Amino acid sequence: MGIRYQQDYIVPFYESDRFKKMRISSLLAVALQISGEQSVSLGRSDVWVSEHYHYFWAVIEYELDITRLPVFSEKITIETQATSYNNFFCYRNFTFKDENGNLLVEIKSTWVLMDQESRKIERVADDIVAPYASDKISKIIRPHKFLKAEVFEGASQVRYPVRFSDLDMNGHVNNAKYFDWACDMIDFDFRATHEPKHIAIKYNHEVLFGDDIVGKLLFKGLVSHHNLNHDSTQIEIEWK
Amino acid sequence: MGIRYQQDYIVPFYESDRFKKMRISSLLAVALQISGEQSVSLGRSDVWVSEHYHYFWAVIEYELDITRLPVFSEKITIETQATSYNNFFCYRNFTFKDENGNLLVEIKSTWVLMDQESRKIERVADDIVAPYASDKISKIIRPHKFLKAEVFEGASQVRYPVRFSDLDMNGHVNNAKYFDWACDMIDFDFRATHEPKHIAIKYNHEVLFGDDIVGKLLFKGLVSHHNLNHDSTQIEIEWK
Repeated sequence: MGIRYQQDYIVPFYESDRFKKMRISSLLAVALQISGEQSVSLGRSDVWVSEHYHYFWAVIEYELDITRLPVFSEKITIETQATSYNNFFCYRNFTFKDENGNLLVEIKSTWVLMDQESRKIERVADDIVAPYASDKISKIIRPHKFLKAEVFEGASQVRYPVRFSDLDMNGHVNNAKYFDWACDMIDFDFRATHEPKHIAIKYNHEVLFGDDIVGKLLFKGLVSHHNLNHDSTQIEIEWK
Repeated sequence: MGIRYQQDYIVPFYESDRFKKMRISSLLAVALQISGEQSVSLGRSDVWVSEHYHYFWAVIEYELDITRLPVFSEKITIETQATSYNNFFCYRNFTFKDENGNLLVEIKSTWVLMDQESRKIERVADDIVAPYASDKISKIIRPHKFLKAEVFEGASQVRYPVRFSDLDMNGHVNNAKYFDWACDMIDFDFRATHEPKHIAIKYNHEVLFGDDIVGKLLFKGLVSHHNLNHDSTQIEIEWK
């Protein structure tokens, strides 16, 4: 089931939102950072993967279950574990727990290895993933089903130009940004009175500098559906 | 000259820009966080200041001298010290050093105490600042002189709507955001080939949710002058 790696963390001011709750985009960024640290500790850093295979890791899907969001200056423990992989997909879990060990947030994520030049998905090499001791499986875990772009005809929309500060070292828009863009379309008053309970995010195409993001939003009851750039990124949030 | 407080830090992925350099906005955010930690350690946390005085701390000016920006995954040491204060202003320095003790970045900052209700600047109470052991001085350190809004007539401009994700716990736009907005107006190719050498930032008025930011940019040689919302925030960057 994979080697576990954990780290204590204190939620800083700048990762806290208007209501003192840890930003979802920061939660995803910190999770990514900690999985990167595990990879370094197992001799499979991003640099190693790049030098040996010319690949880089990309997350293509997240599912978050949120019992309660961590708050500003709260001491939490984040644990991660690469659980299993098949020919093309690697699965990794994260848990965020409070000081008493209560589960705050659980994240399931799906990763692929991409070629730096072709930017295409490559087959998972055993050599890369062996140190994580995760299970090799044959089945593909069924991804979340999102509303397709066509359903968003006539939905409210906002255009976001991609700026320098949105980019990361991989040369494309940082994954965590899409969530902010999607959620920034939701009413302030709604944000003040609701917290996400379940979030699903799927990244289908990377977006580069010079492109614009067109975000669309559709509410069905307490679920907000977000579609960015005709299915490039799909997000679904159940609120409570 | 004030008690020193320091902390080791490793630059994470999500605080690194397209070119693996630590983002200036992250540099300022982390500096702020560390001064907050010193305040906690001295029994003068933001919560204490709020409960005893109904005040909050606000930075009104930064000056940065950059020898070299920290890079992704570099181990650095950040040190801070409240150096002096007068009736209305408190002065604090930060240094960012590499593993060998070489100075990377030096920040000088000016702080005020603001009333939570009136949002007006209050007189510095000795009781609040005594634990930092900084010098009480009578003179006011001369602030940097910026180009006034009038000079920006006809300069290139961009309108940024303020979004939920731009806000911090103080209910206004987070200070670090202005720098991103200002710099995002500069050409990508210029950013790829230049690094800031000296930066001055002055915050004159806070910006709240629902407002727009109008950023203006004027280049004079290798110095970029930025004016946001008619002198609300003034930024000057000397590039190398």
